[in-house]
Amino acid sequence: MGELGNVSSIRTAMEKNQYLLKSQYALNIVEAKCKIIDEEMRMKYGREITRSITQRIKTPESIYAKLVRKNLQTDFKTACDKLNDLLGVRVVCLFVDDVYELAKLLKQQKDVKIIKEKDYIAAPKKNGYMSLHLIIEIPIYFDENCEKKRVEIQIRTATMDCWSVLDYQLCYKKNMADTAGIMEKLKRHSDTIAAIDREMLTIRNEIEKI
Amino acid sequence: MGELGNVSSIRTAMEKNQYLLKSQYALNIVEAKCKIIDEEMRMKYGREITRSITQRIKTPESIYAKLVRKNLQTDFKTACDKLNDLLGVRVVCLFVDDVYELAKLLKQQKDVKIIKEKDYIAAPKKNGYMSLHLIIEIPIYFDENCEKKRVEIQIRTATMDCWSVLDYQLCYKKNMADTAGIMEKLKRHSDTIAAIDREMLTIRNEIEKI
Amino acid sequence: MGELGNVSSIRTAMEKNQYLLKSQYALNIVEAKCKIIDEEMRMKYGREITRSITQRIKTPESIYAKLVRKNLQTDFKTACDKLNDLLGVRVVCLFVDDVYELAKLLKQQKDVKIIKEKDYIAAPKKNGYMSLHLIIEIPIYFDENCEKKRVEIQIRTATMDCWSVLDYQLCYKKNMADTAGIMEKLKRHSDTIAAIDREMLTIRNEIEKI
Amino acid sequence: MGELGNVSSIRTAMEKNQYLLKSQYALNIVEAKCKIIDEEMRMKYGREITRSITQRIKTPESIYAKLVRKNLQTDFKTACDKLNDLLGVRVVCLFVDDVYELAKLLKQQKDVKIIKEKDYIAAPKKNGYMSLHLIIEIPIYFDENCEKKRVEIQIRTATMDCWSVLDYQLCYKKNMADTAGIMEKLKRHSDTIAAIDREMLTIRNEIEKI
Repeated sequence: MGELGNVSSIRTAMEKNQYLLKSQYALNIVEAKCKIIDEEMRMKYGREITRSITQRIKTPESIYAKLVRKNLQTDFKTACDKLNDLLGVRVVCLFVDDVYELAKLLKQQKDVKIIKEKDYIAAPKKNGYMSLHLIIEIPIYFDENCEKKRVEIQIRTATMDCWSVLDYQLCYKKNMADTAGIMEKLKRHSDTIAAIDREMLTIRNEIEKI
Repeated sequence: MGELGNVSSIRTAMEKNQYLLKSQYALNIVEAKCKIIDEEMRMKYGREITRSITQRIKTPESIYAKLVRKNLQTDFKTACDKLNDLLGVRVVCLFVDDVYELAKLLKQQKDVKIIKEKDYIAAPKKNGYMSLHLIIEIPIYFDENCEKKRVEIQIRTATMDCWSVLDYQLCYKKNMADTAGIMEKLKRHSDTIAAIDREMLTIRNEIEKI
Repeated sequence: MGELGNVSSIRTAMEKNQYLLKSQYALNIVEAKCKIIDEEMRMKYGREITRSITQRIKTPESIYAKLVRKNLQTDFKTACDKLNDLLGVRVVCLFVDDVYELAKLLKQQKDVKIIKEKDYIAAPKKNGYMSLHLIIEIPIYFDENCEKKRVEIQIRTATMDCWSVLDYQLCYKKNMADTAGIMEKLKRHSDTIAAIDREMLTIRNEIEKI
Repeated sequence: MGELGNVSSIRTAMEKNQYLLKSQYALNIVEAKCKIIDEEMRMKYGREITRSITQRIKTPESIYAKLVRKNLQTDFKTACDKLNDLLGVRVVCLFVDDVYELAKLLKQQKDVKIIKEKDYIAAPKKNGYMSLHLIIEIPIYFDENCEKKRVEIQIRTATMDCWSVLDYQLCYKKNMADTAGIMEKLKRHSDTIAAIDREMLTIRNEIEKI
């Protein structure tokens, strides 16, 4: 056995039982919900709310790596039971107050069950990561059955989204001894980003008062 | 008042209350359901099932014309109450038996309520029109509410679909006196089409026996 | 070595030098050309011209199988030199006269070079296959360079397109001894299809005269 | 005459001669070029280059407003002659050095003719607006003819892109007396944004050195 064997057995499992098609279906529903809220808020405030709404199904490689990192058994069944982010939707807003209003409107919907909520904007991760995370569950109807599908929704501002690109690059560096200095910079950069977002909000509010 | 006034007041009504966005959402769900069934059947039989799955929201012009034809009041509220085909999905299959199996699998789904079913394949319309029509209702969740959305699903073979193009062209001709002869031909053409579809099925069944 | 080895070395070669992205680019240009002609003709005749325009990049499996069938060396370089259908666009028209007019308008374009033309409608293949095939070459600009890309365009009616599905199914049957009877039926079915298309045309012309 | 009359006569002119379809074609080619460069750079540097590539055809309303602002005659012919941004592609990069490299690779392409280049990053507009603008011309082949199509390409970082949203909001405020204070803040905010982009670059370069 070995890494490749496991990645490829996860891939094989994902190709069965219409996993991909059903996941796509669930993601499309969540994306549609976000778009409807986006339009609702756009009408209400007369300005742009989101910059992009994207979706992804976690790849076999990425599932395998996460299972290893979490010391879990490296099979797809375990992934389905234990990982909350197999299906993900990312919403990038322009202003930080919109992040919270969009989340609130999503949580109100009757077929959306909130499994977990983490506010990494109010309390950023140690490395500086900021984002609002919702793990939700929605019912999806196929055949005669109804399946519950869990989806992780990350809502953040465009500037937070820029920061996360640097963090992602750093993740792929092995030589951890050398990264301490950079991690410190990245953390401070995250504080600057938060300040930028507050400034954006202040200016926007002043413009709206004119 | 007059025709234009009414068409444009229907258009205005359609632009309110996120009618278009919510309708799009409902159509996407129905289209996704059809695609999942398509894949299921493709796996089961090892061959192509549908040639295309398309959707449309009825235009204000077309709504107005239908209300007039049916002697109904020409406003959008009446259209929503009385017309079943404001939202439509068309599924074009290759073989006539697949039309029925696809419909059966759709009807089994727990969130799909069948409002009406018309089998214009077993009993074509007088002019020769063939198609299986399902009017369904599905629940769509927005905000804190759940709306029922009615969708007309037309399922037919690719050859029936070709026939309907001629019929559609004829509809737009006013001079009805001259159309009698053509209507007769169109009706006979529809019989030939039905024969073609039976032949398609026979040959396919023989191929599958090899 | 062996079949899998070759398929996978073809796949590897296809992932290099931006083959897929550049091929996509070429296909999009050809598809756009077809759509513009479609609209032009739709305006001119006031009716629908095409039912669908699709594109595909030939898969490694399919390339390998064709090279074997043609007794050629089974590597990607040979495929690029000898096969004309690595990139394909299929245009499905409703009426057979539109097939020819669309082809004519495509051939007139200054950046389209015709490499080969085969009229399998006037002279169907032995098995009954009908379609108009154009092999064209168009210049695609990347970097500082210009590459010539060959694309096979198949133009046919929707009824011919239905026939080809049966033929495709038959292709995958190995037991050729048993297929003789069916091939005969398929050939006769192709004649019926041609008759249907002529009838479509006749009725359409009569409708247009009203 | 009057505003509405002119907007609608511009709209009518845009619906003729396949202006929309041909413009779409030109935009798709430019977008494809940007995507190929994006992939090329992504391979070379092993990291994400662009965050989004979008396109738009200027609306009749927006064309009319711009003609008025520039004191030009308000018809579509004048717009085609005098305005360079009827067709626009916007490329949002993550890092400011990528903005310049992407532009360089685009300018090298043999079928791209550079009409004008404005570097509003090196020298921001008075209000703080930052972006690299290229006006290019590409040949598009239709029928027997070849048309030159002008496209404005705006290349900027994601943070610059955020800034522009505020600026856009301010544009729609009439009461200019009150905007002076805000414009000052917006200008300073633009300086902060430029500093953020430099910091992003510094951190990225340090990460890449590990």
